[in-house]
Amino acid sequence: MFAPQAIGFVRSPFQNTEAIPKGLGARHSEEGTLELLPEFAQGLTDIEGYSHLIVLWTFDRSEGFELMVTPPSDDHPHGVFSTRSPRRPNPIGLTIVELLRRENGSLHVRGIDMLDGTPILDIKPYLSNIPEEKLRRGWLAEAEARKR
Amino acid sequence: MFAPQAIGFVRSPFQNTEAIPKGLGARHSEEGTLELLPEFAQGLTDIEGYSHLIVLWTFDRSEGFELMVTPPSDDHPHGVFSTRSPRRPNPIGLTIVELLRRENGSLHVRGIDMLDGTPILDIKPYLSNIPEEKLRRGWLAEAEARKR
Repeated sequence: MFAPQAIGFVRSPFQNTEAIPKGLGARHSEEGTLELLPEFAQGLTDIEGYSHLIVLWTFDRSEGFELMVTPPSDDHPHGVFSTRSPRRPNPIGLTIVELLRRENGSLHVRGIDMLDGTPILDIKPYLSNIPEEKLRRGWLAEAEARKR
Repeated sequence: MFAPQAIGFVRSPFQNTEAIPKGLGARHSEEGTLELLPEFAQGLTDIEGYSHLIVLWTFDRSEGFELMVTPPSDDHPHGVFSTRSPRRPNPIGLTIVELLRRENGSLHVRGIDMLDGTPILDIKPYLSNIPEEKLRRGWLAEAEARKR
């Protein structure tokens, strides 16, 4: 296995997890910055052409994992791989952000849901959608329906 | 930083990278299996409700990285974070698959583009799409337009 290394860090308005919108209907519209370390900045070449990016990062302030978790959006437990819980066997988070602009090694983005200082592992282009009519969202859709 | 561990392995029809469709217009419709290690299988509870999953895995047969890469879909180099190149600072791959069915700790899926035996790091539910009219795909869209 590889040894993960930070390619940069998130600058975010969120200093603690309580501040991050969670649960049903949570909207992530906060702006923030993905600041790459200078030695990785060249890897951003041509990224301006993409409207959306996939950011992989680490839950660096979470410890351990559990296989069954009760997420903020429901009142009973689900398998961790059916949720976005931070307490995962590999504590890797994924966020899709909208790219607003680039300034050298910094990407200004919208849709931040990471804590300030979160280490970034990877950035990938968001290329395509699953056809909407083919998308099912399991227990989460059921939890939403119960709430309505 | 955490120490990555395999939660399972991909069973795929692809024994070498040459067999995997790549470049413009590549379609990934091959079926395969995500086989979780027994100690992680409980984490799949309730996953059947999702039509699509995000799979994070490692490019375990790729070594090192480069910041500028020329992908199969174009004839000139782009920053690695603008591409899906395996030669990334953190060699983490991402594939969105369609979940066909679950058998205990095995997920039968469509849309495999990993090599047989690839270590799986994480599985997450695919929850929503970016509105199609907001999606731009940069150099890749330009390369496609040139090919037409």
